[in-house]
Parts: sequence; structure tokens; C-alpha cells
Amino acid sequence: MKVVDVAVPGARYPIRIAPGRLDHLDEAIPPNATAIALVTNPTVAALYAERAERALARTARKVVRIDLPDGEEHKDSATLNQIFDVLLSQGFDRRSVLVALGGGVIGDMTGFAAAVYMRGIRFVQVPTTLLAQVDSSVGGKTGVNHPLGKNMIGAFHQPVAVEIDTDVLATLPAREVSAGLAEVIKYGMILDAEFWAWCEANAARLRALDREVLGHAIQVSCELKAKVVGQDERESGLRAILNLGHTFGHAIESGLGYGAWLHGEAVGCGMVQAAELSAEVAGLPRADVARVRKLVEAIGCPTTAPDLGAERWLSLMRVDKKAEGGEIRFVLTPRIGQAIIQGAPRDAVLRVLERTVA
Amino acid sequence: MKVVDVAVPGARYPIRIAPGRLDHLDEAIPPNATAIALVTNPTVAALYAERAERALARTARKVVRIDLPDGEEHKDSATLNQIFDVLLSQGFDRRSVLVALGGGVIGDMTGFAAAVYMRGIRFVQVPTTLLAQVDSSVGGKTGVNHPLGKNMIGAFHQPVAVEIDTDVLATLPAREVSAGLAEVIKYGMILDAEFWAWCEANAARLRALDREVLGHAIQVSCELKAKVVGQDERESGLRAILNLGHTFGHAIESGLGYGAWLHGEAVGCGMVQAAELSAEVAGLPRADVARVRKLVEAIGCPTTAPDLGAERWLSLMRVDKKAEGGEIRFVLTPRIGQAIIQGAPRDAVLRVLERTVA
Repeated sequence: MKVVDVAVPGARYPIRIAPGRLDHLDEAIPPNATAIALVTNPTVAALYAERAERALARTARKVVRIDLPDGEEHKDSATLNQIFDVLLSQGFDRRSVLVALGGGVIGDMTGFAAAVYMRGIRFVQVPTTLLAQVDSSVGGKTGVNHPLGKNMIGAFHQPVAVEIDTDVLATLPAREVSAGLAEVIKYGMILDAEFWAWCEANAARLRALDREVLGHAIQVSCELKAKVVGQDERESGLRAILNLGHTFGHAIESGLGYGAWLHGEAVGCGMVQAAELSAEVAGLPRADVARVRKLVEAIGCPTTAPDLGAERWLSLMRVDKKAEGGEIRFVLTPRIGQAIIQGAPRDAVLRVLERTVA
Repeated sequence: MKVVDVAVPGARYPIRIAPGRLDHLDEAIPPNATAIALVTNPTVAALYAERAERALARTARKVVRIDLPDGEEHKDSATLNQIFDVLLSQGFDRRSVLVALGGGVIGDMTGFAAAVYMRGIRFVQVPTTLLAQVDSSVGGKTGVNHPLGKNMIGAFHQPVAVEIDTDVLATLPAREVSAGLAEVIKYGMILDAEFWAWCEANAARLRALDREVLGHAIQVSCELKAKVVGQDERESGLRAILNLGHTFGHAIESGLGYGAWLHGEAVGCGMVQAAELSAEVAGLPRADVARVRKLVEAIGCPTTAPDLGAERWLSLMRVDKKAEGGEIRFVLTPRIGQAIIQGAPRDAVLRVLERTVA
């Protein structure tokens, strides 16, 4: 079993990574827990809820299951209220524990419910998608969408433990594996040239869900993210580099309508665009732009962005949450393994769009 | 001007107390604020919003006013969403600031909106009731009600400043003044025998809203609460003593239906009952029980509890949030100025009810 120790101001928790962790969820429940709610969705529940419930039953605590409707479109305050209704009607107190079994949507909503139920209770993350395993496992971001914006209502709330069962990825659709791998290689691109090269060498085995290779990729991804988040829990500075590819990516997602592309696919394509922009304004060698395009392709993500029209592209990028005060700032990589944040002239962005949109 | 410095883990802010602070709210806005939302209700707005807006306008930032419906029954997620709708449609970003102008309901909702909007923005408290000035000014408790329980959804979120204008109390109904004074004397009873004696000597001047006396009472109350909260932000132990009178008081409030008695009135009466119970099981001299009854009466709060029937009383006290694991635990005072937390036998509680209910 691999263990990543995450430390942020005021909290510390382990990420345990191994095949079969689902059968050991009881080990993640604090001894003074009074009751447990397992929050999941019908798709995941059909595959894994029974095993999770059997493991949690070993704690000899009441275990209540809450099945939420599946999909990003349900990540809202109405669905959140379903969690509160069950917790309150079942008498859950301040020492009860929530367990999030599912992808990012389940994790974000369960984490936010835990953040605000009785002003904060504990929760355990059991991410079942690769994206959630390498992204939402670390950082404590929780929240729901608002009709006027994604993730607009939320809180920073750290889990007491994250349990990653690498075996559950076997049932994940191939597109979602590729989308998760986009976030994996992102960590290499912004922080670790050696890990990037390792991803290049192991791209095929990663897509094939080779257990050993996958476990290593998840561990390093969590370690790299934990290092960033540990230094900057609130995204005031350093943490923003984790948004590599996201300015372009968000434009793709909201330009096509959310759900057309998976988030990770949009980030993968956005990384190619960020690499092109880095070559324009931050000195990234063109040979490295080619490496980025090749690896994004190798993990199965799109490298050609949709044609939204140049003006639409620019305006979509401007409403990104990061655009405080109106200026577009990009995460750029002067070389693979190093990230900076800076503005870019409109001309350079337009040249990138010409080269990456079709 | 009196200033109380509040320090909790991760946050530090001033409470400024003086007549006329309303005209200086601009001094509470951080220099890098991008926009300001003044959240209030129609009753308070009619009296004070214009002066507040004039002061905030001196920051040269956009100031948007949000009037929420008045009353505890509107302290829910629907009203909360009204705040989010305005903030999002007006483009409020992570550096915007909310200003809560009103009593506890406005403060709790605005604070919670600030806690979860974009995962946390800054807010300023401008409490306009005595209760809010001496209670919600310190501690960072924010939240809304759920149909199944009061304050069930919330967060700990500290303001960047609290501005207390003692002049605004002139428009407060006398009952609300008395209710606020119940919380003031509570601090003396649990923490400071000298302050308690000072309250006894100044009860009439407090009710008459004598500026000097009132300013001192608010300052000491905030200091005492800040001392407790600074040692125990999350109510794991010490902070629970602030709930003196609340176990009985909550039973009164929910037994009669919320709103029949003011919260402070119920706490005032609950303090008499807690004193009686302290005489029964914690050694409080009977002469001090009489002093408690006399001071609660002197500040204008009821000292006789409503007849809900003994069984109803007991069951209402058991559902109190503090009743973790089912046992009723009370905040008791072995002597005036000192508090402990302990269980009490059913018999003793019944004797107290016999003596205090009519």
C-alpha cells in the first residue's frame, strides 16, 4: 500500500492507495464516530456500494446510504438539501461521519455537506474516477454549482482520510481514464520534468490500467499536488499553477456547453494551447510543444480545440474565475516541469487559437 | 472609542465600539476590496441604510444594497440564495466584501453567505441589536435554519471587523434591550463575579441605555467572549459554558414555538433555572440564586418559565444540540463567576421545574 501524507494548516490526513481498499473502509472511520452516511450515486452504487457497506458495517455504527442523482447538472443546492434532510431526520450529530463514494461530483457535494452540516463534521473521500483520485483527493475544495456559475458556492474542508482503490478504475469508461490522465501529466508539466518523461515512457501502460504503473502515477500526482496545496491552501498564489490548461479548457467546456467534453479532455487540449502560448511569450522550445501535443494524444485526449470563433474564445476566457479585475492571466511553462503565471497580449492568444482550433 | 481585539486561530479582527460608528463604516473596508454589498432588512434599512451607504460610498467602490425579508422564519437557504443571485449577477469576485447591517439573523446569513461564496470572501459585521452586539460579534458562528432544526447549516467564518454603533440601540424596542442584557449578565455569571456585581449596580442605567454604561457593558461582554472563543474556536470544550441558560431556554423557545419569547428572554429565564439547578447539584448558595433571579428581573426579563408539562420539558431539553449521545448536560455555576459542565439527575431537574414553572 502506498500512503501520501497531506498536511495543510490545521489539518493532516493520509491518502491510502492500493488495489482492494474498498474492503477496508472501516479503517478510515475515526473511533469516536457516532454514525456514518455513505453518499453515492446509482451508477457507482450498483458496482461498489455493497462492498463499501459491508466494510463500514465492521465499525458497528449505524450506516445510512444516500443515493444522489448522477451528473454535474445535479450538483446544486437542491441535491445538497437531500443530504441534509437524511442527516437531520436520522439524528446525525456533530460526531457523525460522511463517506463520499464516487467521482468529483459526489466528492464535492459530500465534502460541502460535511463542511456546513452543524458547522462542520468529518468526511472520508473514496474517489472512484481517476480524475477525482488525482485531483479532488488533495486540496479540500468542496462545493456546488449555482445557475450563474460553476462551483460558486463552496468551502475549503479537508477529509479525515482518502481511500483510493485502484481496482475500481477497471469499470471506468476509457474516455474518463484519458480525462484523468490529462490531470496526471499536468502535474509533470508544471512541477516535475522527470515525472513528465516517465509518463511519456509509460503512456500506453497507463491507458491500459496497469496496476503498478497506475498506482505510481496516482501517488506522484497526489504528492505533487499536496506539496503545492500545503504551501498555499487558499489559492492566493502558487496554487494557481494547478490551473494549467484551465483557462483554455473552461472556454471549451462552457463554449460547447458543459458535458460535451469531459473536464479532463478540455484540460488536456487546454494544455496543448497553453504550451503553444508558452512558446509565444514564455520561451518554451517548439520541440517541447510537440512533446506536449504528442503525450496529450498518447493518453487519448483531443489536441484540436473547437471552433467557437475568435471573439467568443476571448470573451469566454475573460469570465474565468481567475480573471480578477478583468485581465486574462495564464499559467505558462517556460520549460517542461516549471510554471509561471503571467498575462499575454491579445495577438499572441489569437495566434495560438489559429494554430490549435479547427 | 473602545476597541476589543479578537484573536482566534488563523484570524484576528477589531471590534470598534462608539456612538456614531455607522458614519465611519468605510474605515472597516479593506483597501483591496473590489466591490461592497450592504446586506440588511427593510426595518433596519429605513432607519440606517442611507447613512451606512453614504459612509461606504467614500471607499469609491461599487456599493450594492441587498434587502432581505425580516425575521427568523426567513433565515433559510431560499433567502441565502437571494444574496448569491445578486452577488453573481453583479459580478462580485473573491475580493469583494459583504457588510451585515442588522441583528443576529442578518449577521448569521450574511456571514454564512460570505463563508461559502466562491469558497469564502470577507465580511464586516454592523450589529444593530444589543444581543447581536454582545453575542454574534465574537465567535464567527454563521448559518441558516433547516426545516428540521435551527442553525443546522452553517460555518465558522470570522469577520474582518465589527463596528458597533451604540447610538442605534435608541431605536430598539425595550423588550429587545432586555433580551440583550440577559446575554450581558450571562458573561458575568459564568466568568466574572466583579462584572456581575457591576451589572447589579448599573441595571437601571443599562435599561435606560446610558451611553457610558452601555459602552462598558458591551466592551466587557465582547472581551469575555473573545477570551473564551480564543481558547476554543470550535466549541469542543470551554466554549460550551457560553450556553449557560440555553438548555432550559431552547426548551422554552421551541416549546412555545419560536418567536413567542425572544431568545434573550428565554436565556434570561433559563439562567434562573440553571441557578436553581446549580443550587441543587453544584453547591451554588441559595442567596446567589436569589441574586440571579433579582438581576434577571431588574433587566426586564421573565423569571417564571412556561408550563409545558414536565415530560415535554424533559424531552425538549434532550433534543438540544448539546445533547450528544443522549445524556442531558447542563452549564452550571458552583458560584457566580464560575461555570462547569455536568449532567444532572432527572429528579433534580424536576424539582427545578417545580420551582420555576408557573
